[in-house]
Amino acid sequence: MSDGIRMTLAEVRALARRKLRAAGLAGDHADAVAETMVAGERDGCASHGIYRLLVAVKSLKAGVVVPDAVPVVDRPRSALVRVDGGGGFAQLAFARGLPALVEAAHTHGIAALALTNVVHFAALWPEVEAIATQGLAALAFTPSHAWVAPAGGTKPVFGTNPIAFGWPRPGGHPFAFDFATSAVARGEIELHRRAGKPVPDDWGYDAAGQPTTDAAAVLDGAMRTFGGHKGSALAAMVELLAGPLIGEMTSADSIAADGARGGSPMGGELILAIDPAGFLGDAVAEHMARAEAMFSSIEDQGARLPSARRYAARAVSEADGVIVPRALYDDIMNLGDAA
Amino acid sequence: MSDGIRMTLAEVRALARRKLRAAGLAGDHADAVAETMVAGERDGCASHGIYRLLVAVKSLKAGVVVPDAVPVVDRPRSALVRVDGGGGFAQLAFARGLPALVEAAHTHGIAALALTNVVHFAALWPEVEAIATQGLAALAFTPSHAWVAPAGGTKPVFGTNPIAFGWPRPGGHPFAFDFATSAVARGEIELHRRAGKPVPDDWGYDAAGQPTTDAAAVLDGAMRTFGGHKGSALAAMVELLAGPLIGEMTSADSIAADGARGGSPMGGELILAIDPAGFLGDAVAEHMARAEAMFSSIEDQGARLPSARRYAARAVSEADGVIVPRALYDDIMNLGDAA
Repeated sequence: MSDGIRMTLAEVRALARRKLRAAGLAGDHADAVAETMVAGERDGCASHGIYRLLVAVKSLKAGVVVPDAVPVVDRPRSALVRVDGGGGFAQLAFARGLPALVEAAHTHGIAALALTNVVHFAALWPEVEAIATQGLAALAFTPSHAWVAPAGGTKPVFGTNPIAFGWPRPGGHPFAFDFATSAVARGEIELHRRAGKPVPDDWGYDAAGQPTTDAAAVLDGAMRTFGGHKGSALAAMVELLAGPLIGEMTSADSIAADGARGGSPMGGELILAIDPAGFLGDAVAEHMARAEAMFSSIEDQGARLPSARRYAARAVSEADGVIVPRALYDDIMNLGDAA
Repeated sequence: MSDGIRMTLAEVRALARRKLRAAGLAGDHADAVAETMVAGERDGCASHGIYRLLVAVKSLKAGVVVPDAVPVVDRPRSALVRVDGGGGFAQLAFARGLPALVEAAHTHGIAALALTNVVHFAALWPEVEAIATQGLAALAFTPSHAWVAPAGGTKPVFGTNPIAFGWPRPGGHPFAFDFATSAVARGEIELHRRAGKPVPDDWGYDAAGQPTTDAAAVLDGAMRTFGGHKGSALAAMVELLAGPLIGEMTSADSIAADGARGGSPMGGELILAIDPAGFLGDAVAEHMARAEAMFSSIEDQGARLPSARRYAARAVSEADGVIVPRALYDDIMNLGDAA
């Protein structure tokens, strides 16, 4: 790729921090948010990489996010951790809640961390990976903005509502996945719209509830869930677990609260952590080996584990750095620096 | 339906208990197992109704299940409950563990119940519904026999691996779903095989790894997951959470342990319960109302909630009883009674 800028991960980190600080974000938030952009860029997930600077800065300029929010951690029950993010980005709230989540999972065998009053724009896999790296199994859920119709309907109710899972692997990167319960990522439809390309007619509906191949019409109408009624059921579960269960907004609430500012979704996130030693005691290694046997039975037939592509990209990025497309690099440079 | 036997739910219950006892199952197990058959028949899920008597009796006769197993409950950590089912059917183990799960969820905010060393042949929705009826959100997972290929592969690794979820609704039946992570139920393929009908070519593979429309070939080969790589990722998660995490068999282990006896899957089940009052305190009613608003936004556009069909069937069955097809009734009668 000739028309791109090669950068080390340290350079990506420094650039992200600088531009976030220039947009008015407090230092501790800028550091936490930059880390997720580095992770996305590093793992070959360009849509969650340095590109997200544009999204974050837009949310900051629109006043959707509190730039100097101070997360407050409490323990409403012995195995429940809650972080009120004070209207700031979710990343710092997660970082502040993580130690208590890990401690509670070790003590009680299972624990839950609720992030409330946060603004989301990042993937969930860095979070489940962080928990799995500490030896725990992890599940994470978050609503977004109401863009997705339930199965059997054509009007938006759900967000893209990702589900993420992490599993510790002895001596290696965690097994981790993170996927939207919508049929495709919203960014995928946006890319078709920008390119003037039609979308398949089973990606969504126009505002009148009719299937359409017009990407803009789907963005104004409703996306579909993945996997028919099963994906729709999971999307509803995500709304409930990371919305009403933790005192937070649903995706419909979030888009209503945004008005037309075009900011990132606001609301909550629920993260569960389970300590394998809780049920297994001294037999952790034995049973982790049985999980490894299952992973082998997948890979030995030529199928890929969900996280394999990201880890392969990571190995390359850590050695050689990443390439940021020229147009994106220019857009980032145009964000402006601190006065 | 003229060629069927109309029965009250009490008659279904009595018949199930009698035939299970006649097959050698202990009384407390027979009562618990009969209840799930009544629930299936009552809710219009014929494949989980009284038909399952044939499956249960086959497992009993094959020696796959311990007919008089005594479940043993322990608490390996404060928020973890474990029931060793002693090789018996899962239903009694669940019933014995449920009170401790509910107590632990109230005390700690979240809790997990692991059933180990049990034989499964029933749906998970009666379990998540039982927990949600007590005011808790519930998630349940169980592997089965290795019949399903991972996305990108053609050889069986996963079971049909259902995921179930329950959510309490004020003054009404819980919101509940329970679906296999396989593309279709195994019984659906079996029905095609019996009828000599071809299956769609995207349901599975033959033993050589080729797509096929031959139902028998899919049963001997591998089924697909639902929803492509996303369903495959969820199937892997179910294996890990309800297998190695709780010291239990994967679906591959289960079918290997069965040998060729054709018994129901053996292994474990993991059930999570979360108390909404944990995060919400006095605001439970307010946030439950927001969940209700989401349900309304689904139903108001003519879409159906996952549990709606079952509850409609239940209302009819409780008033009018159910109709058991003549051929099934005859098969059940032929199971024989106690000497």
